[in-house]
Amino acid sequence: MVFLFAKRMAVAIVCAVALINSAVAAEKVYRLKLAETWPSNFPIFGDATKNMAAMAAKMSNGRLKITIDSKNKHKAALGIFDMVRSGQYDMGHSASYYWKGKVPETLYFTSMPFGMTAPEQYGWFYQGGGMELMDRLYSKYNMLSFPGGNTGNQMGGWFKKEINSIADLQGLKMRIPGFAGEIFAKVGAKPTNIPPGELYTALERNTIDALEWVGPSLDLRMGFHKIAPYYYTGWHEPATELQFLVNKKSWNKLPADLQEILRVAMRTAAYDMYIHSYHASSENWAQIEKDYPNIKVKTFPKSVMSAMKKANAQLLVEAAAKSPFAKEVQDSQAAYMKKARAWTNISDKAYLNSVTSK
Amino acid sequence: MVFLFAKRMAVAIVCAVALINSAVAAEKVYRLKLAETWPSNFPIFGDATKNMAAMAAKMSNGRLKITIDSKNKHKAALGIFDMVRSGQYDMGHSASYYWKGKVPETLYFTSMPFGMTAPEQYGWFYQGGGMELMDRLYSKYNMLSFPGGNTGNQMGGWFKKEINSIADLQGLKMRIPGFAGEIFAKVGAKPTNIPPGELYTALERNTIDALEWVGPSLDLRMGFHKIAPYYYTGWHEPATELQFLVNKKSWNKLPADLQEILRVAMRTAAYDMYIHSYHASSENWAQIEKDYPNIKVKTFPKSVMSAMKKANAQLLVEAAAKSPFAKEVQDSQAAYMKKARAWTNISDKAYLNSVTSK
Repeated sequence: MVFLFAKRMAVAIVCAVALINSAVAAEKVYRLKLAETWPSNFPIFGDATKNMAAMAAKMSNGRLKITIDSKNKHKAALGIFDMVRSGQYDMGHSASYYWKGKVPETLYFTSMPFGMTAPEQYGWFYQGGGMELMDRLYSKYNMLSFPGGNTGNQMGGWFKKEINSIADLQGLKMRIPGFAGEIFAKVGAKPTNIPPGELYTALERNTIDALEWVGPSLDLRMGFHKIAPYYYTGWHEPATELQFLVNKKSWNKLPADLQEILRVAMRTAAYDMYIHSYHASSENWAQIEKDYPNIKVKTFPKSVMSAMKKANAQLLVEAAAKSPFAKEVQDSQAAYMKKARAWTNISDKAYLNSVTSK
Repeated sequence: MVFLFAKRMAVAIVCAVALINSAVAAEKVYRLKLAETWPSNFPIFGDATKNMAAMAAKMSNGRLKITIDSKNKHKAALGIFDMVRSGQYDMGHSASYYWKGKVPETLYFTSMPFGMTAPEQYGWFYQGGGMELMDRLYSKYNMLSFPGGNTGNQMGGWFKKEINSIADLQGLKMRIPGFAGEIFAKVGAKPTNIPPGELYTALERNTIDALEWVGPSLDLRMGFHKIAPYYYTGWHEPATELQFLVNKKSWNKLPADLQEILRVAMRTAAYDMYIHSYHASSENWAQIEKDYPNIKVKTFPKSVMSAMKKANAQLLVEAAAKSPFAKEVQDSQAAYMKKARAWTNISDKAYLNSVTSK
């Protein structure tokens, strides 16, 4: 009897273990930690990570849980590259060009002056070899990198005075970071970098004469339109693409279905952010135009555009001379853009010009 | 002993049933049948459904299996609406404006003459109330409708002779279906519809003087550039969005995680198709320009554009008079486009115009 009871217990235990194993295989929860460059509740960029995580959670029926730490938590807005590389975080959300001081070639995967528009650049990433080039670069650093959301065309910035010639740029103090800042320096301006929280005061007190931020989507809340009447159209970041970073070890631990869920959630969140940015820019520009009807939208004159184009070309040649990989990416982008722009010119551009009365 | 043996068997059976139930819950395979308007292996449009089904299969670890029947199989290219409505198919891939003979208001969910560009229209769908309006319409017919992929700006068509004024359109025989055809009729042309397989011969033999198809992405394989030297820029379908249809009963049978997988797979496949179309148009336009350097890209003169705009406005008023819902959609699109276009004009359009030398 005891023997039989033990046997029955054994069957029950085997049975319970089998059930648990089966449940574990199907229901094991994978937890990923993501660090983002943005502060808590930052609009649009922060919505992109929340959108991605929500899709991943819902599609995986709770098996893929992504927690998001904003910069308020991790205190290292520009440390995402290192934190994901080391495995301190499994994922990051930031922008590739923030790492150009560390790895100069990361510059090319965000947006380039006089470069591609958003659909052109997505074409390059997904159909024109861009993803493969980005993979080659980031795999050296133990990471995968994916497009993370596009801001659309960024505006050229807010200016206190009109720019009518290159002479007007000489000595002009402007907050404009990165590659575009180097171009501005080459044509005689004085680019500076100032923390976001101090920008309004710096512009108001004439510490700077001009600044660029993003576009109406994020400029409205900064209030620059209240103190600078000239809003210049964009040339330096025609399609700023943010970035999802994933640590390779963290990626490799995921089963194939969750890898695909994560890949698709990131891809959709990136596209969605492009559309969200477009929408927010439309709404906010309407608001600015209504409240501040005297704001003047200006485009830099041809002489200024030509000088900046020339400076840009020189800087690209210098960068290519230092890195064969940079040269390869530049060539890939230039070849792709040549064909894509020819199409843009006879499609969207021709359409927009032919239906606009003014 | 027999009693005890029976008890043990009972435990084993309970155990097996529990295991099977658990496995069934986690691994039950849901099969959906999709009918598409396109023939087998149709490029770009057909790739969108394959892309969607592949993402769904991989993300669900095989639990969501979507089989695709092309028109070669179901023989009803323009019967998708009815077949999905009745439940003969769970899903469809087509274009909303194909049903305008049946439900006139479906017209507004594909692309409208002088209407929104692709990012503007995605903004309207996802952020500006477009999805809600489409839901209201299609739910009456027991279906859900989702954006299904964008062709980008469609070209105005291939013409044998140049169009310099409205006089040149009088009696012009052109293959141009749908709402744009009605506009052409209003300005004096003779729109006709001809099956795709007969288009080349009709144009070659002057049965028609002109035709519109899509754009370089799909025009190249048709060969029209070999027999018509004028390629007009677009005005009538600035952002043709295809459509995924889902039967509501089929949708409701899916568990929440598979509904989300299906929703996200459709959404991503739609965006991906927009980028795929952009890429294919770039590549194919480069091919056409290289092989046929004498092709002239033209934009209709202002007088023609104005006359077509006027005809378009009249047709919209007529449609609105017949249907309060049509009026509601028209108003929603017009209000959204006003803001979105103001942004497009100072962003992408200003950028493209400022960097183009010619």
